[in-house]
Amino acid sequence: MEIWDVIIIGAGSAGLAASIYTVRSGLRTLVFDEKLAGGNIGDAPKVENYPGFAEISGRELSEKMISQCQKFGVIMRELEMVEKLRLDGKIKTVITPDAVYQANAVLFTTGAHHKVLGVRGEKEFQGRGVSYCGICDGPFFKGKNIAVVGGGNSACITSLYLSGIAKQVTIIHRRDAFRAEHKLALDVALKNNVDVLWNTEVEEIKGDRQVRSVALRNGVTGEKTEVAVDAVFVQVGEVPNSAVAKAADVEVDAAGYIKVNMRQETNFLGVYAAGDVTTHPVKQVGTAVGQGITAALQIYSYIQGICKVT
Amino acid sequence: MEIWDVIIIGAGSAGLAASIYTVRSGLRTLVFDEKLAGGNIGDAPKVENYPGFAEISGRELSEKMISQCQKFGVIMRELEMVEKLRLDGKIKTVITPDAVYQANAVLFTTGAHHKVLGVRGEKEFQGRGVSYCGICDGPFFKGKNIAVVGGGNSACITSLYLSGIAKQVTIIHRRDAFRAEHKLALDVALKNNVDVLWNTEVEEIKGDRQVRSVALRNGVTGEKTEVAVDAVFVQVGEVPNSAVAKAADVEVDAAGYIKVNMRQETNFLGVYAAGDVTTHPVKQVGTAVGQGITAALQIYSYIQGICKVT
Repeated sequence: MEIWDVIIIGAGSAGLAASIYTVRSGLRTLVFDEKLAGGNIGDAPKVENYPGFAEISGRELSEKMISQCQKFGVIMRELEMVEKLRLDGKIKTVITPDAVYQANAVLFTTGAHHKVLGVRGEKEFQGRGVSYCGICDGPFFKGKNIAVVGGGNSACITSLYLSGIAKQVTIIHRRDAFRAEHKLALDVALKNNVDVLWNTEVEEIKGDRQVRSVALRNGVTGEKTEVAVDAVFVQVGEVPNSAVAKAADVEVDAAGYIKVNMRQETNFLGVYAAGDVTTHPVKQVGTAVGQGITAALQIYSYIQGICKVT
Repeated sequence: MEIWDVIIIGAGSAGLAASIYTVRSGLRTLVFDEKLAGGNIGDAPKVENYPGFAEISGRELSEKMISQCQKFGVIMRELEMVEKLRLDGKIKTVITPDAVYQANAVLFTTGAHHKVLGVRGEKEFQGRGVSYCGICDGPFFKGKNIAVVGGGNSACITSLYLSGIAKQVTIIHRRDAFRAEHKLALDVALKNNVDVLWNTEVEEIKGDRQVRSVALRNGVTGEKTEVAVDAVFVQVGEVPNSAVAKAADVEVDAAGYIKVNMRQETNFLGVYAAGDVTTHPVKQVGTAVGQGITAALQIYSYIQGICKVT
């Protein structure tokens, strides 16, 4: 069986950045993604803070990174999910429904996914008015009334995006202030068709064949209300995609993020992690890219070491 | 006296990335650079590994970052050198020849500069054939014979650049193999007008009004030779620009790199460092950017904390 130098699991910003470096360093590199390549950044309508691009859509940025990988000959297996791993020992085994692969090093760049509210109606109406991705599903609700649930950066970014499509956007936030960065909160305040219900929690999402309303409860006054909406965009945080790593005994923290050091090393020799799936305190495209590059160059040194001793 | 939220020292990739984030977060940000903004990346003729740009000149990339900073209103003081700092206490003091400044937080992104060979003739002929920057000075030696000293990435990148300008490029390397990444070493091997003298050290740079030759010694055979060249480009490593930080008691390692943790924190509360000046194991534009962003968001949290308690 062919032994790859490195298998990278996850083709988001961290994985793509890493693969550019490993391939340019001469390492035989295989990249998996259970979805299409690109990662979460593809959901961002506008990116203004990735250094080098004053303004670019997330999709365009991810396409630029993907084509850069293709230019250097990165081999990608999209829509192929890694189901199981064996990471002890010098040769690592990676198992998908299609085949068994082997590599000298493994890099987890599996990212994170959105948290759910866990209220009645949320699962029932998913795809029928409940969504976790503004840019994917927003255009279906042109001229409609939309609720966005959450108070962080992603809630504000999603609300700003939807305000250009919807008639009215109502942000439902359980606290009395945003956790989002100042400029985003300001931008939201300046939008005429975006208002905010503070100290408010969603109790239920209601409808018939489609979402028709949200049942709300004010956490301070206890008052219950119902607001008519056509869609609910849930933006209440993230969960790391670390299940397959954890099952292979990669060390994670209480929230499930893969523990890494400054060299992006995990508890297994030859196994690295980078980007949103890790315990790194910041989750941004620019930091995912930096961590991916660091991991790639550490992997290069590690593989060079292997080559010398065998 | 006005108290800035954050003073960033050094307007290279790390400092520029950080300032985009601090300004977008609403922090009053002042950026110093003793030279013009842009940093070392401006010296790179071609950058292929910064994710998002399949191929761009270093100068163009740095100009894009600078204009992105300007778009968000970053205030820059170019050609103003920070000479002294006081970092203990909540308010930090930053002294330049022009004025005394105060800030709640300080970020060092002062980068690193090239090492010198330390041989006879090197200082004497600097600017008359001896150079540390291929893209700056290469064009002066069109059609000439050029020596490049070193064996890492920068030696190979410089040689590739100069091969398009010079008649002949001779790489002088004291070891028997490059430390450079595989693809760069391959690219060098494919150039007809680039050859390599392995196991060879420069003993002296000779000339009259200009460089005329290099006196060499083979470290294995002991054989001494002299090669006629019109210029010597020295690419033998870097020294961190940490003198002013060190003088203010910021902790550095044996080589002078500022010690940081994963949050880019130094030994002083409210004082951070990012990019090539730090102990971070990887020195790349993409990693400098990631560290700058991490520092910026940590500074934002730190300042928010200050605002809450005062």
